[in-house]
Amino acid sequence: MPKEHKLQIIPLGGLGEVGKNMTVIRYGNQMILIDAGLAFPEDDMFGIDIVIPDYSYIIDNRDQLLGVFVTHGHEDHIGTLPYLLRDVDTHIYATTLTLGLIHAKLKENSINKFQATAVKPGESIRLGHFKIEFIRVSHSIPDSVGLAIHTPLGTIVHTGDFKLDHTPVSGDILDIHKFSELGQKGVLCLMSDSTNVERPGFTQSESKVGQMFDEVFRAAKERIILASFASNVHRVQQVIAAAVKTDRKVAIVGRSMLNYATIAAELGYLKIPEGTMVDVDEILNLPSNRICIVTTGSQGEPMSALTRIAMNDHKKIEIQPGDTVIISATPIPGNEKSVAKTVDLLFRQGANVIHESASGVHVSGHASREELKLMLNMVKPRYFVPVHGEYRMLIKHGQLAEQLGIPEENIFIAENGSIIEFTKNSACIAGKVTSGRILVDGLGVGDVGNIVLRDRKQLSQEGILIVVMTLSRSSGRIVAGPDVVTRGFVYVRESESMLDEAKAKIRQTTERCLVSGNIEWALLKNQIRDVLGKHFYEKTRRRPVILPIIQEVP
Amino acid sequence: MPKEHKLQIIPLGGLGEVGKNMTVIRYGNQMILIDAGLAFPEDDMFGIDIVIPDYSYIIDNRDQLLGVFVTHGHEDHIGTLPYLLRDVDTHIYATTLTLGLIHAKLKENSINKFQATAVKPGESIRLGHFKIEFIRVSHSIPDSVGLAIHTPLGTIVHTGDFKLDHTPVSGDILDIHKFSELGQKGVLCLMSDSTNVERPGFTQSESKVGQMFDEVFRAAKERIILASFASNVHRVQQVIAAAVKTDRKVAIVGRSMLNYATIAAELGYLKIPEGTMVDVDEILNLPSNRICIVTTGSQGEPMSALTRIAMNDHKKIEIQPGDTVIISATPIPGNEKSVAKTVDLLFRQGANVIHESASGVHVSGHASREELKLMLNMVKPRYFVPVHGEYRMLIKHGQLAEQLGIPEENIFIAENGSIIEFTKNSACIAGKVTSGRILVDGLGVGDVGNIVLRDRKQLSQEGILIVVMTLSRSSGRIVAGPDVVTRGFVYVRESESMLDEAKAKIRQTTERCLVSGNIEWALLKNQIRDVLGKHFYEKTRRRPVILPIIQEVP
Repeated sequence: MPKEHKLQIIPLGGLGEVGKNMTVIRYGNQMILIDAGLAFPEDDMFGIDIVIPDYSYIIDNRDQLLGVFVTHGHEDHIGTLPYLLRDVDTHIYATTLTLGLIHAKLKENSINKFQATAVKPGESIRLGHFKIEFIRVSHSIPDSVGLAIHTPLGTIVHTGDFKLDHTPVSGDILDIHKFSELGQKGVLCLMSDSTNVERPGFTQSESKVGQMFDEVFRAAKERIILASFASNVHRVQQVIAAAVKTDRKVAIVGRSMLNYATIAAELGYLKIPEGTMVDVDEILNLPSNRICIVTTGSQGEPMSALTRIAMNDHKKIEIQPGDTVIISATPIPGNEKSVAKTVDLLFRQGANVIHESASGVHVSGHASREELKLMLNMVKPRYFVPVHGEYRMLIKHGQLAEQLGIPEENIFIAENGSIIEFTKNSACIAGKVTSGRILVDGLGVGDVGNIVLRDRKQLSQEGILIVVMTLSRSSGRIVAGPDVVTRGFVYVRESESMLDEAKAKIRQTTERCLVSGNIEWALLKNQIRDVLGKHFYEKTRRRPVILPIIQEVP
Repeated sequence: MPKEHKLQIIPLGGLGEVGKNMTVIRYGNQMILIDAGLAFPEDDMFGIDIVIPDYSYIIDNRDQLLGVFVTHGHEDHIGTLPYLLRDVDTHIYATTLTLGLIHAKLKENSINKFQATAVKPGESIRLGHFKIEFIRVSHSIPDSVGLAIHTPLGTIVHTGDFKLDHTPVSGDILDIHKFSELGQKGVLCLMSDSTNVERPGFTQSESKVGQMFDEVFRAAKERIILASFASNVHRVQQVIAAAVKTDRKVAIVGRSMLNYATIAAELGYLKIPEGTMVDVDEILNLPSNRICIVTTGSQGEPMSALTRIAMNDHKKIEIQPGDTVIISATPIPGNEKSVAKTVDLLFRQGANVIHESASGVHVSGHASREELKLMLNMVKPRYFVPVHGEYRMLIKHGQLAEQLGIPEENIFIAENGSIIEFTKNSACIAGKVTSGRILVDGLGVGDVGNIVLRDRKQLSQEGILIVVMTLSRSSGRIVAGPDVVTRGFVYVRESESMLDEAKAKIRQTTERCLVSGNIEWALLKNQIRDVLGKHFYEKTRRRPVILPIIQEVP
């Protein structure tokens, strides 16, 4: 009989946050990775472009990594791959559309070759001790899957991001039978999507949105401009359907919308009736009631097409009174104000904007409480690990599982880096591996840390004031300066007397210091910082960064 | 017969925004002001503390100002008074609690003397051509009123901020009879609160929250910590009631909560049964099921008591497992993420947090659509000006009025600065006065403008890089430097070679320039900026602010 090893689940991202999903499943000295996603920066991460998980654990154990399994093609599940593949040579397993999107993403990052296998929902991959089964789920991007990972110690089910859509646009519904069958055979541990645990009831079907589109398209007398997530291929499919029914042509505007639509159409996930799509230049020549423009910018992103249109700053499209603008999305937490601002600007230009969630032009891609209960009762796991959510969501998902009869001690509210360890008869949190977040700013991966961020924050609040002078060591005198230069502090023109007083104070402080025979510049710099800090706080109640720079000539 | 003048409504703030409410009503050469509020800064106003309306129009016409009428004591209605009163000598009319809060606010700003008259709801003030009637409304602060301004050309009704609460905590309901009577007699123009025009139905009564408090307080086995808006005196009253019923003592924590409660209690708006309130040091010695702590921080404000408690950074209070934390508020748009972060931290510390709006521990202070309809149908105005809302809200409120039969041409979607002018038989937008926003940063009122803000933004994104060197004009050589200093750009320690290369490039550029006999430093600085900009963008894909400073010795 082979030696029995321990089975471990090690989340490296996605717990206590929405974003940068990444989880290790390890048995003995073999491991697989589920997803490799990014997160978008928080408000206080000034200048940061994206955030990726600290995956040093994978680098340290790269010889043991058998492959990466990707559940679907959203950024928070694939966005770390361009970084990971530079550090680790591995094989990617995903469905066809997901692989197509990964391919495009890697190419953008100048990675043109990688090893990958396309897997269909329902198929399995055997790798070492593992057998990994792909299970169809519904989500806001086609070809999404959950995974059943069969191991010598039992089966782990990972739902991926899911909802239960009984009338999906593609016709393919979540594989209820497979999840139930797994439950019937016995599941060791379930990891389930917690995003919408705070929402009661069921999430509406994607096809509801299509019905609403039909209504709105029929009622609109002039042009329709519709913004949504580029990755929501089913949504775009329904826009095309509504346009065809109301005899409108469709033009796609916005780079990422075009990219996704092209990939999805090439791979057969987006079906476009002949003669429906036209170029934006062409469509603008049609009568207004034959026009439908699909675009990005549903989150009020500064550079997106819809935001530019709203600001009357788009090269080709400007709002005409009577336009109907549909924002087919809800604001992601943190984007509420920028979306509201975009809506306001569109109204100001004379558009009729349909945007509230109550208007029925958007549904979520994640399961609400009743669906989460269904998943728990289908899979009937012995242990439960809520994933994909902020801390309070994990707690509430845990409480939900308890209500359904899973014993409290079998529910693990884990953190990124936790080692959840299973033996034949037990499970516990057995320790911690390195985890955290790596900030990416331009080409710099991890070179911006707390000190740099703290400086950026302080600079953003009150600006900077730089003092420069040249001292002669031999004569003990100031030979040039002091000059005072500011950025982001005050208008210099209106503050001349305050700045002149500052110069006098610098001169005084320096001369006192030079006379005393002190040539310890660090000390002098501190004194200048103190004197000026006090001066400006008194005059303005502001505390700019004060940076004295002293140069020395013989 | 006296000469007939024109009647004008001139909003200086509060239109196309939520905040800094301020409206001029002018007849001939007499004018009154309604409210003088502040707004909180937008995300991109780095370092700004508050925003006030540009009221140069009032300064320019100060001789004609008869008085300021304040509808209630919220910051967005009183917060500009400390600035206005420094520029204009005028008289304030408001209800007792509102005056109490104004008094405290002015004192904080070292204004100890001002002229004021307390007016009761139902009373009127005659000033010049005007008669101003105070009308009771319900809102999230006691003693709120709307105004009827009787003029020779007709009556203007201004609702103030209102909701229709049939079961208010104080027992005083909105004066339905007065609004209807005005409508019956004929109202020229209605200005009505648009905040909640996007919400269908009726806003719930404040007393519903009290019922929910009773339930939660009874169910809680350990301590209760409740956060709400300091100004919501009725909410605090209901906390006290629930505490008394469940035999808990109440301690107030947080400076502003204490200030409001003190003023409200002194003026009789907050009724505290003997022996209920205790000091926070005392309450912590009681058994946990006898403790109720009321605090600020319902918006996740960084320095507030609840945020500090959540971060385990409060001097006196730390979360104990089993604590029930109630956040009796909904996030103001823009605060969603900071509130969510606070909730997460509280859960992490082991508290049970009750926070969602569905939980019933908060209701809005503003009228929803059905109440807005009722107001329109009671007052039956000839003209309608939706106020107090972002642009889309004004539009939607206008559409609502149209549905109720007010002709489209009698509805004015105005902007800050618009002059809405009435003659005996007509009304129109007749022009514009100076309006806008003044940014307050510390002691500086209006000294931070677009250039300073743009600098702060750029500094916050990629930081700053300063180049300093001293040149000798006579020898045409670099005598000190170049030195390169950065803040918020990169970790210097990890970027030494990149910075050394930069120095070499500066030296090269400078020497080439000096050799060519050019001593135009501005040109040299531009060249350095270009060379370094390119260098750093290639190496990092970042664009820090580059600031060359050249000093000259003979």
